[in-house]
Amino acid sequence: MFGQIEPIQRMASQLARLPGIGPKTALRLAYHIIGLPQEQVHELAAAIWQGRKNIRYCQTCGTYAAEALCPICADARRAESGQICVVRDARDVAAIERMRDYHGTYHVLQGVISPMDGVGPEDIRIAELLERIKAQAVEEVILATNPDIEGEATASYIARLLKPLGVTVTRIAHGMPVGGELEYTDEITLAKAMEGRREI
Amino acid sequence: MFGQIEPIQRMASQLARLPGIGPKTALRLAYHIIGLPQEQVHELAAAIWQGRKNIRYCQTCGTYAAEALCPICADARRAESGQICVVRDARDVAAIERMRDYHGTYHVLQGVISPMDGVGPEDIRIAELLERIKAQAVEEVILATNPDIEGEATASYIARLLKPLGVTVTRIAHGMPVGGELEYTDEITLAKAMEGRREI
Repeated sequence: MFGQIEPIQRMASQLARLPGIGPKTALRLAYHIIGLPQEQVHELAAAIWQGRKNIRYCQTCGTYAAEALCPICADARRAESGQICVVRDARDVAAIERMRDYHGTYHVLQGVISPMDGVGPEDIRIAELLERIKAQAVEEVILATNPDIEGEATASYIARLLKPLGVTVTRIAHGMPVGGELEYTDEITLAKAMEGRREI
Repeated sequence: MFGQIEPIQRMASQLARLPGIGPKTALRLAYHIIGLPQEQVHELAAAIWQGRKNIRYCQTCGTYAAEALCPICADARRAESGQICVVRDARDVAAIERMRDYHGTYHVLQGVISPMDGVGPEDIRIAELLERIKAQAVEEVILATNPDIEGEATASYIARLLKPLGVTVTRIAHGMPVGGELEYTDEITLAKAMEGRREI
């Protein structure tokens, strides 16, 4: 970023720290921002800073929240469903909400068990999940961690803990993604799809 | 961006107004920013806002500056070159500076003549260029507007104005880009490359 004056250079360097934004894109964005009306740039900077500053974790489910409770935990109808969907992080909550088909509550683990990274069961929000199950009327816990090694290990661990509590524990289905092609599907996914086959 | 809490939604909406950042990328960036340490987010927001707020135009050449003069116009050795390179906007100054091979000054027109968009010669910084040429010892004016219709028209217009002032007026060369292939070069560029051929 040779030959840029300091304010533009500083802006571009900061933007280049974001994922997927290289030095050239950052410089292009910086020039774009410099050319915008001051009010609009103020809105952008304020949305970034205020957004980060005002964020906290929902005290029940652990997802991002603007208040003490997230809008989902604050909605009594969702707790009445008796379902808790366990996910790794807040982005997964957003992904499932986009589906608009699940009406229960969530529990965000804020991580997965990963001995390689030194993350054990006590480092993620499993104790909080047990407390919720003991305190509330929970019928079903849906384990929706990712179908990768850590996600599967975490799901198995939680399933073993919950079974004695008399709650139904389910795992999201593995199989062919809709629109996928057999030819291009990896063997493990294919094996899971065969294993999970149903009569039609 | 359904199902996002307000601070994240607001941040993502603002980011999605930037060029090349769609709603999905904006949301991904927002989640990334939410997960960063507060200090780092403050640096980012401050760099954006301060950068925009502190920017002004160099009173001589019209490029972006942090002071009354840009670093180039403030450098006496560059004025001594007797050269002024005329470009459309501040990004073009940055592009030529990256080459590290030009040691004269610049003049940023802040636009090009474009009757289709209602931009006439009086709407861009041509009068300021004439004043500089009358006030300073200028030997050569290099017209480096883009090789498109508006850029060519603007260059011709300025060349006609400057000729009577006894200053050398040059236009940057058109031709094959280095590394380009004849097969994939458009006819107009190819014609310009033939026209501009030199004995070797």
